Amino acid sequence: MTSGRPREFDIDRALEAATQQFWTVGYEATSLQDLLKTMRLSKSSLYQTFGNKHELFLRCLDHYEQTMVSVLSEQLVRSISTERFLHDFLDGVISEAKSGRTRKGCFLVNTANELSQRDAVIARAVSSGTGHLAEVFHRAIEQGKQQEEISSFLPTKNLVDYFMTSVSGLRTMVKGGADIASLKRVIPLIMKTLFVNEPGYQ
Amino acid sequence: MTSGRPREFDIDRALEAATQQFWTVGYEATSLQDLLKTMRLSKSSLYQTFGNKHELFLRCLDHYEQTMVSVLSEQLVRSISTERFLHDFLDGVISEAKSGRTRKGCFLVNTANELSQRDAVIARAVSSGTGHLAEVFHRAIEQGKQQEEISSFLPTKNLVDYFMTSVSGLRTMVKGGADIASLKRVIPLIMKTLFVNEPGYQ
Repeated sequence: MTSGRPREFDIDRALEAATQQFWTVGYEATSLQDLLKTMRLSKSSLYQTFGNKHELFLRCLDHYEQTMVSVLSEQLVRSISTERFLHDFLDGVISEAKSGRTRKGCFLVNTANELSQRDAVIARAVSSGTGHLAEVFHRAIEQGKQQEEISSFLPTKNLVDYFMTSVSGLRTMVKGGADIASLKRVIPLIMKTLFVNEPGYQ
Repeated sequence: MTSGRPREFDIDRALEAATQQFWTVGYEATSLQDLLKTMRLSKSSLYQTFGNKHELFLRCLDHYEQTMVSVLSEQLVRSISTERFLHDFLDGVISEAKSGRTRKGCFLVNTANELSQRDAVIARAVSSGTGHLAEVFHRAIEQGKQQEEISSFLPTKNLVDYFMTSVSGLRTMVKGGADIASLKRVIPLIMKTLFVNEPGYQ
């Protein structure tokens, strides 16, 4: 059993490396050579362990989504309010662009943009991944309604769709090179629809 | 002079065909063969008239942006209110996905997603094109403030950034295969922030 451990560790590391590669430059622009180099694998181990490029890409999407859902769920549990949780998430979407050298955006959003029109299998994987992320925001908004931060007047589903739309929009603006300070000023406008008493706006 | 006419007509037609091609599948996935076929040009005329693929792509971005700005400016002049103009624009972003066989999205947003990280010249062209579109929405919102549809409390610039973010978000959701009916229910939530008296929401 112990002999399997290093291999499992290598699989996780290789998967993470491949995810970063696809996430940074996209599916089409990633060559087999890029993958072999970043994953530090031989061609035969790559095919043996992960299958072809398409299969590896699906594994990477899954890896990304599971990591995101687990990090966000923890942040929600630790957060003092729904307002704080959602605000910090939007702020993070914008701020990560400032800290990183590249504006990578969200791997799921990038993939939707690059491939969903042309590849039904990948489109379904993106849709399922986005659905799992939306579930975290659904829990957050339900919690906000219970705490009377958010009006119960509007269906949670609609508010989640609105929030996901706003997140996708911010990510696209960040990737398009929009001014970070200007985008920060968009956050309270997005929040205004969700939180009836958002300070500063009537 | 008259002998120049057919050539000019051909340039417009060829440019429109190339724009549709790049817009539908993106820059990377468009081959020289695709361009020659759709533009109905020989390789030498293509290079002679439009330069290389990169130069042609920039011409196409410019062609797309000018068309969009001129169509939108006309719609704004004809519209009975800012609320109607902005609502119809958002509705159009969603509805065009239902009518077309593909969900092409916005050529500028697609290009930002595909190339802005890797190509500074194209990033600048996208940014300038987006800026010209934003100017139309700036005019619309200023007009809405004058007509007291929109509160004068918030700077127009922030409201334009918010609106552009919402549009980018809707386009990405549409491309990702989101349910059309659900997205339609997001429109009043987006509008709520802009229009203090948006009906149905307090």
